[in-house]
Amino acid sequence: MRRVLVVGAGGLVGGAVADVLAEEHEVVRASRSEGERVDISDPASVRELFERVGPLDAVVCCAGVVPFKPLEELTGTDYRAGFESKVLGQINLVTEGLARVRDGGSFTFITGVLSREPIATGAAASAVNGAVESFVMAAAAELPRGVRINAVSPSVLAEAEGYHPFFPGYPHVPAAEVARAYVRSVDGVETGKTFRV
Amino acid sequence: MRRVLVVGAGGLVGGAVADVLAEEHEVVRASRSEGERVDISDPASVRELFERVGPLDAVVCCAGVVPFKPLEELTGTDYRAGFESKVLGQINLVTEGLARVRDGGSFTFITGVLSREPIATGAAASAVNGAVESFVMAAAAELPRGVRINAVSPSVLAEAEGYHPFFPGYPHVPAAEVARAYVRSVDGVETGKTFRV
Repeated sequence: MRRVLVVGAGGLVGGAVADVLAEEHEVVRASRSEGERVDISDPASVRELFERVGPLDAVVCCAGVVPFKPLEELTGTDYRAGFESKVLGQINLVTEGLARVRDGGSFTFITGVLSREPIATGAAASAVNGAVESFVMAAAAELPRGVRINAVSPSVLAEAEGYHPFFPGYPHVPAAEVARAYVRSVDGVETGKTFRV
Repeated sequence: MRRVLVVGAGGLVGGAVADVLAEEHEVVRASRSEGERVDISDPASVRELFERVGPLDAVVCCAGVVPFKPLEELTGTDYRAGFESKVLGQINLVTEGLARVRDGGSFTFITGVLSREPIATGAAASAVNGAVESFVMAAAAELPRGVRINAVSPSVLAEAEGYHPFFPGYPHVPAAEVARAYVRSVDGVETGKTFRV
């Protein structure tokens, strides 16, 4: 039985992750609009969340927003928005939460297939996901007290039918299958990895 | 004979790249402090550079700065500084320069071994390099008129002896060897690739 904070628990992936982890663990659900409220892009909001919820064994994140536009329409503002939310937002969980995570605990971030495969309108998402995965690889080597960190990289979600036309021929992965990769990260021994789903 | 803009030509890599490209091509050297002046993190400065230098066949970049600190000392300000310089700075070259690059031309960015291998104090550099490589992969699929884009990923430079203690056991790569990967990108046919040196 571990105590696990699921950030983004109001979303498709986060809901599935919280449900499967709750079978074995105590789960604290957080999101922008349900359960414990948090805006991961705001360090003060993240700090207050960790103060409210107390000690944890694991922090998993299924949150982060990135703009999708044709390459020639993407502006600095778009790239920055994705970086602040999905990269710095997730890094804020480590910066603000590391002291609250017990020895041998873990962080699990969300990334996505676009770090290594392109779609039209996906250049900002690709850049952001690439940053997440390389950060996780590097941070794993410096985290203290046996604390681990991994990322989960889903293809387009089976349940997110509105996105399917933008991912022609890509595998559709059910949220419940994505959730299994989070279990592997939380309950396993690996660190610095990106689990592709 | 191509017309090639080398950004960062005042640095170790940029100087070597400009020298080797000048054997076959017309090279325009740009940097913060020598030749054509440019600050790649400032879109207006990049725009003015392209207006001054006129039509090009290739834009290669050997510029971008990232902070190095232990993971627990890195702040949002540090991650942002690296992102603005090495990620958005290089993307600015595409955003502002694409219209000046002839059909079938190319962009070549700089990244580095830290996208896939960790060193102590390297988490921000890793995140930034991961973003550069995934952007290049994705942008290649959307660039118009046969314009290509690649990245060059060196290990620690042989000539940068001050950095060697931070890269224990990593291969030392001479700047002239890094420069050959830029030639491959400029004169070859590949796109969306990261060339490891």
